[in-house]
Amino acid sequence: MSLRLYELVGGGDRRFSPFCWRIRMALAHKGLEADFVPVRFIDKDIIAFSGQTRVPVLEDGETTVSDSWAIARHLEDRGGDGPSLFGDDAARQLCRFVNMWADSVLSPGIFTMIILDIFSILDPADQDYFRTTREQRFGATLEDLQEGREGRLDGFRKSLQPLRAVLDEQPFLCGARAAYADYAVFGQFQWARCTSSFRLLEEDDPVHHWRARMLGLFDGLAERAMGFPC
Amino acid sequence: MSLRLYELVGGGDRRFSPFCWRIRMALAHKGLEADFVPVRFIDKDIIAFSGQTRVPVLEDGETTVSDSWAIARHLEDRGGDGPSLFGDDAARQLCRFVNMWADSVLSPGIFTMIILDIFSILDPADQDYFRTTREQRFGATLEDLQEGREGRLDGFRKSLQPLRAVLDEQPFLCGARAAYADYAVFGQFQWARCTSSFRLLEEDDPVHHWRARMLGLFDGLAERAMGFPC
Repeated sequence: MSLRLYELVGGGDRRFSPFCWRIRMALAHKGLEADFVPVRFIDKDIIAFSGQTRVPVLEDGETTVSDSWAIARHLEDRGGDGPSLFGDDAARQLCRFVNMWADSVLSPGIFTMIILDIFSILDPADQDYFRTTREQRFGATLEDLQEGREGRLDGFRKSLQPLRAVLDEQPFLCGARAAYADYAVFGQFQWARCTSSFRLLEEDDPVHHWRARMLGLFDGLAERAMGFPC
Repeated sequence: MSLRLYELVGGGDRRFSPFCWRIRMALAHKGLEADFVPVRFIDKDIIAFSGQTRVPVLEDGETTVSDSWAIARHLEDRGGDGPSLFGDDAARQLCRFVNMWADSVLSPGIFTMIILDIFSILDPADQDYFRTTREQRFGATLEDLQEGREGRLDGFRKSLQPLRAVLDEQPFLCGARAAYADYAVFGQFQWARCTSSFRLLEEDDPVHHWRARMLGLFDGLAERAMGFPC
């Protein structure tokens, strides 16, 4: 059965969505090939068939799945020969916690440090939409939101402490090998790397070393993506 | 083989250590009986045989284990009939992340909201030690540290978002049944409940409902412990 992933795209075919990167990594983990369909913010019509307005959307034969967590579970449960994305049921439940941590701590922590940079790499046709919706959501201009980001770095780095503490003991969140919990967290860092030259991590941070390992997985899948050195 | 757990005790035999509560719950989960040996802060000599100065310490026959995470792994790996504390290897790794999150986010978040209350429930012989060491560590008096805690509640409650998001979907962090990740987090709340009447959670918070379920486990093991309504 053929797989098709609809994913967010910026200018020059830059793929930068944190949620789509989770699924890119999950597909590679499972050894699955997929067609990747670029979708800009304003291309809601392309994914209207999914019944909602956000990527990633996965088409798997006759089945349509949206939301990165639902897609990951689908990839795990559809069968096939690839290694497990989660481990047993207990691991899947705890992976959900890691996923929620990435969404509620990392994502907002990173967003205002790169929001103007994201704007800059968008397809010009997306820029008005992005500026209007985000400025409305946050009640400030993109410029004001990103302003003073150096002053927020320390707090952001502190918020990584649970991740750092685990990565100080083992190469990946999931142990000796990466799996979905790693991809769920890595997606946020890849989002930053694909859109911004702002350095989020110090070079001696175990999280930095982990990110380098993640960038190298699957023959450098994430490293080869259009982005900035980090 | 007989098990003996050395655990922190306050005045009136109050058992309040977050790390010891993790192990109390883990022992109950495994259906294991243990002798509990009370240790005050100043009773370092009682646990000197363990080669370090902190509780919990577990004696399991000839084996001595300290540090709650190491003890939990020991209880899991020693064999026996009880249900798994972790699940598979992948789940154990992710449980470590939850454990680290509890240690690095919950623990410091709660500490300055109850630090003077902890002082109040200590055995009088422990109070000088506690005040001196904590005031030195934080560079402020216990009174000043706890002052204004109402103003920190909102930030603390926000920091619970990953936990809340998962508990909005399922009864326990580990899914349909509690296991060690739940105990690792619950220990922090039980620490607060055993030492302070300060209300950390709103009653309509999914975390509040989860805590009530945790208090009821094992015939109300945690609920029966000396503490305050919460």
